Amino acid sequence: MSQSRHEERQQRLKDKVDARIEAAQIERGILIIFTGNGKGKTTAAFGTVCRAIGHGKKAGVIQFIKGSWDNGERELLEPQGVPFYVMSTGFTWETQNKETDTLACLETWQHAKQLLSDPQYDLVVLDELTYMVSYHYLDLNEVTQALQSRPENQSVIITGRACHRFLLELADTVTEMRPIKHAFDAGIKAQKGIDW
Amino acid sequence: MSQSRHEERQQRLKDKVDARIEAAQIERGILIIFTGNGKGKTTAAFGTVCRAIGHGKKAGVIQFIKGSWDNGERELLEPQGVPFYVMSTGFTWETQNKETDTLACLETWQHAKQLLSDPQYDLVVLDELTYMVSYHYLDLNEVTQALQSRPENQSVIITGRACHRFLLELADTVTEMRPIKHAFDAGIKAQKGIDW
Repeated sequence: MSQSRHEERQQRLKDKVDARIEAAQIERGILIIFTGNGKGKTTAAFGTVCRAIGHGKKAGVIQFIKGSWDNGERELLEPQGVPFYVMSTGFTWETQNKETDTLACLETWQHAKQLLSDPQYDLVVLDELTYMVSYHYLDLNEVTQALQSRPENQSVIITGRACHRFLLELADTVTEMRPIKHAFDAGIKAQKGIDW
Repeated sequence: MSQSRHEERQQRLKDKVDARIEAAQIERGILIIFTGNGKGKTTAAFGTVCRAIGHGKKAGVIQFIKGSWDNGERELLEPQGVPFYVMSTGFTWETQNKETDTLACLETWQHAKQLLSDPQYDLVVLDELTYMVSYHYLDLNEVTQALQSRPENQSVIITGRACHRFLLELADTVTEMRPIKHAFDAGIKAQKGIDW
């Protein structure tokens, strides 16, 4: 490609980006959902926490499904002032008791509600929340109410597969992580520091 | 759903997960690609860095497109011992000069090659590398060779839209981030600490 055609193409790109930046002037916290079956939902949420606290913002993390594994992100972020509330029973397919899982979930949800009503928090991550709704451990209305009445400048990230469509409708930004391929399927072992 | 049906369903899920874990026994570094037009590619890469260093692993970051914006992740991760090499011209649609962009890209690539040949690094992030290939700033063969001859236990993450199919074929794990909706399109301003 010649330099002039290259410049022209780049200028069009720049104009498009500039116009979109110009048009977007509403300032408020947003609801982001990372869903789909692909890898990267929880990691994208933690990447955003990393970015937020790097900018001096306050973030908190609620993990609805996270087991007895140790957790690299937590070890890095907790000393940086990011509180973690992790549901006590861990992976629900390990515990397999609807009653105790529901209780554990509701207890964890209390922490979530507290963060969602605290204007000190710029960012709240509700990791793997989608399963709590689809398993009926958590009432959808209760979740949407807490999200809708949160502080105006607070952003929230929800992660998990098969997100309920009411939550998708409520969200400002939704990315579906689509698995194209996964090392696991080729027989490669999940690795500490990469996969968990 | 009754408790027994619930247990049965959960047991099936657990069996499936256990079988996959059992089957996956190869231990080596993997190549992960986060591509697609949706939000979360770079953030998922940084989330993985966060996880890796939380586990005491060594990670390095090469950013091929990152402008004059300040960068929250860098402020958090660099003091934790994660080196950042950022291409000097920033966003290519700001600079619009193919020759200087190519030179800047090749200079940045030298740092990438150095990390890709250093077995001390458990994880190398090549952020926005895909554009360097599609703009022909960087030779595809050069990239694939460096990736293929990297240390066996080193994992690499490549991010960016429209990833070249040769790189997708080379990858172990590929996630396409599909945009379902974006706050930007609803007129909401990009926010420091969330979007950048």
